[in-house]
Amino acid sequence: MDSFKEECAVVGVYNCQNAAKLAYYSLFSMQHRGQEASGISSSDGKKIKTIKNHGLVTSVFDEENLKKLSGYAAVGHNRYSTAGEDSMLDAQPVFARYDLGEMSVVHNGNLTNAQELRKKLIENGAIFQSFMDTEILIHLIAKSEKKCLQDRIIDAILQVQGAYSLVFLSRSKMFVIRDANGFRPFSLGKIQNDDGSVGYIVASESCAFDLVNAQYVRDVQPGEMLIFEANKPPQSLQIMSPTPHPCIFEYVYFARPDSKVFGRTVYDVRKKMGIELAREKSIDADIVIPVPDSGVAAALGYSQESKIPFELGIIRNHYIGRTFIEPTQTMRELKVRLKLNPIRELIEGKKVIVIDDSIVRGTTSRQIVRILRGAGAKEVHMCISSPPTISPCYYGVDTPNKEDLISARMSVEQICEYIEADSLVYLSLQGLRQSLECGQSDSFCQACFDGKYVV
Amino acid sequence: MDSFKEECAVVGVYNCQNAAKLAYYSLFSMQHRGQEASGISSSDGKKIKTIKNHGLVTSVFDEENLKKLSGYAAVGHNRYSTAGEDSMLDAQPVFARYDLGEMSVVHNGNLTNAQELRKKLIENGAIFQSFMDTEILIHLIAKSEKKCLQDRIIDAILQVQGAYSLVFLSRSKMFVIRDANGFRPFSLGKIQNDDGSVGYIVASESCAFDLVNAQYVRDVQPGEMLIFEANKPPQSLQIMSPTPHPCIFEYVYFARPDSKVFGRTVYDVRKKMGIELAREKSIDADIVIPVPDSGVAAALGYSQESKIPFELGIIRNHYIGRTFIEPTQTMRELKVRLKLNPIRELIEGKKVIVIDDSIVRGTTSRQIVRILRGAGAKEVHMCISSPPTISPCYYGVDTPNKEDLISARMSVEQICEYIEADSLVYLSLQGLRQSLECGQSDSFCQACFDGKYVV
Amino acid sequence: MDSFKEECAVVGVYNCQNAAKLAYYSLFSMQHRGQEASGISSSDGKKIKTIKNHGLVTSVFDEENLKKLSGYAAVGHNRYSTAGEDSMLDAQPVFARYDLGEMSVVHNGNLTNAQELRKKLIENGAIFQSFMDTEILIHLIAKSEKKCLQDRIIDAILQVQGAYSLVFLSRSKMFVIRDANGFRPFSLGKIQNDDGSVGYIVASESCAFDLVNAQYVRDVQPGEMLIFEANKPPQSLQIMSPTPHPCIFEYVYFARPDSKVFGRTVYDVRKKMGIELAREKSIDADIVIPVPDSGVAAALGYSQESKIPFELGIIRNHYIGRTFIEPTQTMRELKVRLKLNPIRELIEGKKVIVIDDSIVRGTTSRQIVRILRGAGAKEVHMCISSPPTISPCYYGVDTPNKEDLISARMSVEQICEYIEADSLVYLSLQGLRQSLECGQSDSFCQACFDGKYVV
Amino acid sequence: MDSFKEECAVVGVYNCQNAAKLAYYSLFSMQHRGQEASGISSSDGKKIKTIKNHGLVTSVFDEENLKKLSGYAAVGHNRYSTAGEDSMLDAQPVFARYDLGEMSVVHNGNLTNAQELRKKLIENGAIFQSFMDTEILIHLIAKSEKKCLQDRIIDAILQVQGAYSLVFLSRSKMFVIRDANGFRPFSLGKIQNDDGSVGYIVASESCAFDLVNAQYVRDVQPGEMLIFEANKPPQSLQIMSPTPHPCIFEYVYFARPDSKVFGRTVYDVRKKMGIELAREKSIDADIVIPVPDSGVAAALGYSQESKIPFELGIIRNHYIGRTFIEPTQTMRELKVRLKLNPIRELIEGKKVIVIDDSIVRGTTSRQIVRILRGAGAKEVHMCISSPPTISPCYYGVDTPNKEDLISARMSVEQICEYIEADSLVYLSLQGLRQSLECGQSDSFCQACFDGKYVV
Repeated sequence: MDSFKEECAVVGVYNCQNAAKLAYYSLFSMQHRGQEASGISSSDGKKIKTIKNHGLVTSVFDEENLKKLSGYAAVGHNRYSTAGEDSMLDAQPVFARYDLGEMSVVHNGNLTNAQELRKKLIENGAIFQSFMDTEILIHLIAKSEKKCLQDRIIDAILQVQGAYSLVFLSRSKMFVIRDANGFRPFSLGKIQNDDGSVGYIVASESCAFDLVNAQYVRDVQPGEMLIFEANKPPQSLQIMSPTPHPCIFEYVYFARPDSKVFGRTVYDVRKKMGIELAREKSIDADIVIPVPDSGVAAALGYSQESKIPFELGIIRNHYIGRTFIEPTQTMRELKVRLKLNPIRELIEGKKVIVIDDSIVRGTTSRQIVRILRGAGAKEVHMCISSPPTISPCYYGVDTPNKEDLISARMSVEQICEYIEADSLVYLSLQGLRQSLECGQSDSFCQACFDGKYVV
Repeated sequence: MDSFKEECAVVGVYNCQNAAKLAYYSLFSMQHRGQEASGISSSDGKKIKTIKNHGLVTSVFDEENLKKLSGYAAVGHNRYSTAGEDSMLDAQPVFARYDLGEMSVVHNGNLTNAQELRKKLIENGAIFQSFMDTEILIHLIAKSEKKCLQDRIIDAILQVQGAYSLVFLSRSKMFVIRDANGFRPFSLGKIQNDDGSVGYIVASESCAFDLVNAQYVRDVQPGEMLIFEANKPPQSLQIMSPTPHPCIFEYVYFARPDSKVFGRTVYDVRKKMGIELAREKSIDADIVIPVPDSGVAAALGYSQESKIPFELGIIRNHYIGRTFIEPTQTMRELKVRLKLNPIRELIEGKKVIVIDDSIVRGTTSRQIVRILRGAGAKEVHMCISSPPTISPCYYGVDTPNKEDLISARMSVEQICEYIEADSLVYLSLQGLRQSLECGQSDSFCQACFDGKYVV
Repeated sequence: MDSFKEECAVVGVYNCQNAAKLAYYSLFSMQHRGQEASGISSSDGKKIKTIKNHGLVTSVFDEENLKKLSGYAAVGHNRYSTAGEDSMLDAQPVFARYDLGEMSVVHNGNLTNAQELRKKLIENGAIFQSFMDTEILIHLIAKSEKKCLQDRIIDAILQVQGAYSLVFLSRSKMFVIRDANGFRPFSLGKIQNDDGSVGYIVASESCAFDLVNAQYVRDVQPGEMLIFEANKPPQSLQIMSPTPHPCIFEYVYFARPDSKVFGRTVYDVRKKMGIELAREKSIDADIVIPVPDSGVAAALGYSQESKIPFELGIIRNHYIGRTFIEPTQTMRELKVRLKLNPIRELIEGKKVIVIDDSIVRGTTSRQIVRILRGAGAKEVHMCISSPPTISPCYYGVDTPNKEDLISARMSVEQICEYIEADSLVYLSLQGLRQSLECGQSDSFCQACFDGKYVV
Repeated sequence: MDSFKEECAVVGVYNCQNAAKLAYYSLFSMQHRGQEASGISSSDGKKIKTIKNHGLVTSVFDEENLKKLSGYAAVGHNRYSTAGEDSMLDAQPVFARYDLGEMSVVHNGNLTNAQELRKKLIENGAIFQSFMDTEILIHLIAKSEKKCLQDRIIDAILQVQGAYSLVFLSRSKMFVIRDANGFRPFSLGKIQNDDGSVGYIVASESCAFDLVNAQYVRDVQPGEMLIFEANKPPQSLQIMSPTPHPCIFEYVYFARPDSKVFGRTVYDVRKKMGIELAREKSIDADIVIPVPDSGVAAALGYSQESKIPFELGIIRNHYIGRTFIEPTQTMRELKVRLKLNPIRELIEGKKVIVIDDSIVRGTTSRQIVRILRGAGAKEVHMCISSPPTISPCYYGVDTPNKEDLISARMSVEQICEYIEADSLVYLSLQGLRQSLECGQSDSFCQACFDGKYVV
């Protein structure tokens, strides 16, 4: 693994015919946030049904099994692979029967006090059938002494810490909660049904809305609970004081450029990151090229600001599947080149600025530099549109251990040497924040860059 | 569904290298007890790993994923399809972390007080993530106040009623329990390891032993708990007074003829059932033919006793897979004929006795009669080597509702007319018991035949 | 490979709605004659369409692709694996466009002058795209100077030697030919269509008729050509003088017991082989058991004649699939036991006669003897219901080279020792012929037993 | 189908260890030229082996079957779907045995005199087993009276007309030919083997070279034959006078931007097409956005020339697979949106220039315009970086019939209205040629734009 990885995507759909089908399209739109497993639960008011399995959304679901997921409400989940665990057991939604009936839950994030909560619950006789934090919440709900699910969810939520974008589906209602820090993105949209009624959708990324003709309404607020029930407008409760610390790295890498995250369009922010980077670090070069697809917007910004021409100097092959036969030793560095191929004629004899979003271990960057030199680049300047990543994330992102983060153990000069570039520059943290152009951006969680954890 | 169906098979292997591989072969041998899902958990002393999925044993497991199930102990399960439920959620083993560590459980049977136990547990805050009774046991264990797993299992077991052949795997031990009634078969075998040490295996059917070169030792006793731990011989505890009521239907249909069930070889019993049937009902006929494969042994017995020649007059096609294209209306009765084809030359102009193990709904029997008449049979006498099935089972067998059991709503004469046979005879309950040749056979559970439930 | 293998099955259907679907069911019935590849061509009078691929009939075809094979006429083929060749290229039917239009051909058999014909054709500029003899016929037809397909087929046929059951499909007609020796079985059946019209079917084995409600009419005669065209009754031409030498081994092993082959029911012949064997070789034993499924009928005959009780002492597991994980060395002989499991209680302490159809290499027989001894047999007498196989077949059967036929290089005593049996007996060739009970049985091809090749 | 489609890609590898593996990687690089079927033949000097099947390169081949394709020479092929035919029969390579031995052929292109050649060959007794023109060549070779394969290939080639990039593999040699018009691209590369020897590769697109560390040497010349044999340098014969008419549409759409086609880098040409378009048609707009991925380079050129900012305003989802569930009517236009999603914030309120490579039927363009309007575009100006496509191609490209080409039956104004754009402009043919910047560009085949066919 040579990148940070988002751990999942969630979606909830309420008051729509074929809610499961809309959930399916939404998960498809958010496939980039998790490719290991996919699942949907739906309710027709009487019974919750769940289908989940390993694989991409399009391989888990087909016309036939989607039909079984009847009903007007649905929750769905894409899971990112967490190596080393029994992945079979860890697909979502998590379904449970409990004293008030049935529920099915999807969760994007990570609880920071999971271990102690689990320990306490286990001491009190709870059993855990998976390695997902989500089970903790269900136990807390089941054990709560409150009378209705809504109160119990609140009861449970007040005991957990960390990052969570949650959707709870009961047989008749849907509850949506975002943690008080609002670490992970979570948006609310509206769907105009054919019969004139209004449906609702919540999703980890707003790009999910476009495919199902939903309109972005607003973000779910940090600390907010949204309650959806039949024949009522959605109700909003502020169940925790908001202390927003949205994840700044969503802008750097995770989110799709066509998503609106924390109120800003990702593409726009990325471009500004490129502009800031150009302002901070002036480099004498002939062309600016992005590492596709993640570096494109920043490279456009860099080019626009620096007046150095932008070129798509590296072409990405999108046909790679799981079954690809691994190259033998003879064909060194083939692995990166399977995906990325340079355009020799653009690069030959040129001083090249190559823009990437981040450097995690450094191995991919080194291969990219080598590929560009192989294509005849006179100079290769690696420009990273974010600061060095020095600390792991505990709020829903899969990051290597600190010792595997190259920036945590090497200086920029050393990394530059390691990746064999002529120069290496990073956007400053201040520059990154300036790209976000706003006073309250003070509150971003930027622990991966500065090691300061908000929880 | 036109037959009773066994709901599953379990296996436990202890103190064997590659325990999971032995579990795999054992499950393969017991594939006839469940084709819907298959799973294995193994432990290497430090961690329990689980792989389970839909499909036959040979499709769930391959060389690669079996390798991940390292360790010297393993439990495995084949599940029969329970239509209408979320089958994805209902595969076994059920893995759980709880206050004493980890465990993985497999269960063959049905708890008769599941509903009330589940209700009580749910009222006390437990959550249920599947529809399997097995979860109840895990909850009872997790909530028990005893200090060690062994005591807790006992604690839990004493609260449940019904049929259960259970294997519990902890990180270092394996516990095996059979209900006091001993409804379902459950045998203990011994494996001579290459290094001279001795390994152990328990399985729902003794045919599982043969493939892994295990020797049948004895049955797990009703009410017995067997404890397997490192560097100790297996320990036996009689945790409940035995009140044996082994399932008489195992002999009629479920078990493989090469298995030893409740101390008797199934093939042998079935043959005796045919002999008894011939003694009870003398029929003037030219040949005796079985419905393959389930009626073969009884037909041999009938022929031997009646001196009417035995012929394999119906050939079974074993290539049928899931993907078979259903015949259209034009080809009526094709569905049974896909599997069963008569040998016209044997049957033409003959008075035929056809032996089957049981009649459930009657539709298959009718098609068989028609097929035989179509092949030119002069007379068709349907002989059933068990009494009429008039009551559903609550002890681990999937049976239709009472109203769908043809014998529950029609007289033998009416059934005979429905299936279009010239005559129809059943073995009497007394005859069936005589086939089992033993005084203590008094204790068999024969509720499906007489409606008297022992629990 | 430790058995002789039939190389294929053919079917032709004419004047039936959904002819391809009937061909599909027929191929399914004849799956035992070839599991490597399957294919069907159909014609709607305007165009011939072909679908063929690797795998079982049920995996090559599904509802959707069968629909594409519209039309009232169809030909189909199951192919047996011929190791070492490019199996992808060798599936049938073979489709060709030529100067008179289109045709599609299926072929069961082997041409003995294939090599010289191919050589000559190649010298004259023909190309061969596969390793199938069938292409030779198509070339001969394409190059013939006759004016119509019928005459050309005759022209071609007169140049080839060997074994061939052939069906040619043109856009509007179907031609069926059996070689003058009539080596391979080939039967004609009649189908009563719903609209009152009559359809026709030809197939390698008559068991194919039963599933599609066709009536056996008669065998295609050695040297006969059948011509099917619209609005005419089938026409028969005797294009070669018949010199019938039907394959005697079809009775021994290949055909399904419910098929009628060369005018006799296979089951019946096999039983008589067992009777003859009992007459020839009297053995003092307690039970007679078959190797399932191929030895069952002969064992019944042996038992009936010898009065030694018949028992199904070995149970066969039918779930084995391609993906089965091979046992490691530790579990020796597991491979045979995966399929065959003895019933210990039947065998223990007994003198056992075990009946098999033939011994090819001897390895399987040895494992069976060991399995029976492992189950406690006091004596194991291997009785083979056919003579020793000493010569390979060149008429459509896949046999090992002569040096791999154990009977070609060892005496019966030596084989007995090799397979570790207490005694080994074979049915004499005369006994085998007596089982066929008929004067003209003189003409059987029995080259595999006596090395005398008729062509 | 709403685009022109390249019909295939070919590759040939000679004198390389694991030649088939290199062919595999090359086909992977050229997956964009054909996704329906894939195949490779290899030779170890003694025997040619072939594996081919439906599906993507990565699904047809795996570690295991690639191993079977041993040898130092290999040819490979990706095929584009040609609807309506029996696709199973039409996979390449085409293997044949003929009087000089064995050969295997791959072909990118279309023969324009195929029908008459096939007719003549058929009249002379040839048979055709597929619908591929490639068979014609093999027949001509087999029937040629020349003594060696090389002369025969030349003999055959001189009889065919049309487009062909061909690779012939015999057991020991490889022959490469490009038609005299040089319609389709075809390049020669060199591979430095680990043992110091030199291997060779030819491929439809030079992007295939990069992945296997081959160096582009030069294009195979129109009318040139390259001969590869053991222990000799490649030999070049000019077997036909070159009359180069390379396909101008390769630059417009087919080729990967990182390929060098006909001596020019595709990316570079596309950018110039955008520059020319901007020079020809000045439009008052706020942003220039491409239809990804095909319009990107031209949009960069347009932006650079017009000074209107370039933005990646439409994001493409690359996860779409075959199994995708089609949207229902309610979700209109979802089909295009599954792949393409606009960034609302970039587009809202803007005058947008959207750049695409061509308009075939117009339906996709209309949906793109609607998507952009839905995202709030004030004006949408569709700019096409090539002239209107008014005529189908007969030289290896799959194009709709003339009546389905919107430009063949509507004026630009009418098309503009149909696609609901505010304005629609095309690059002029002269402008397109200027993008190619060269005198001899006179010779391009541009029949799809001007209807003048060179053959």
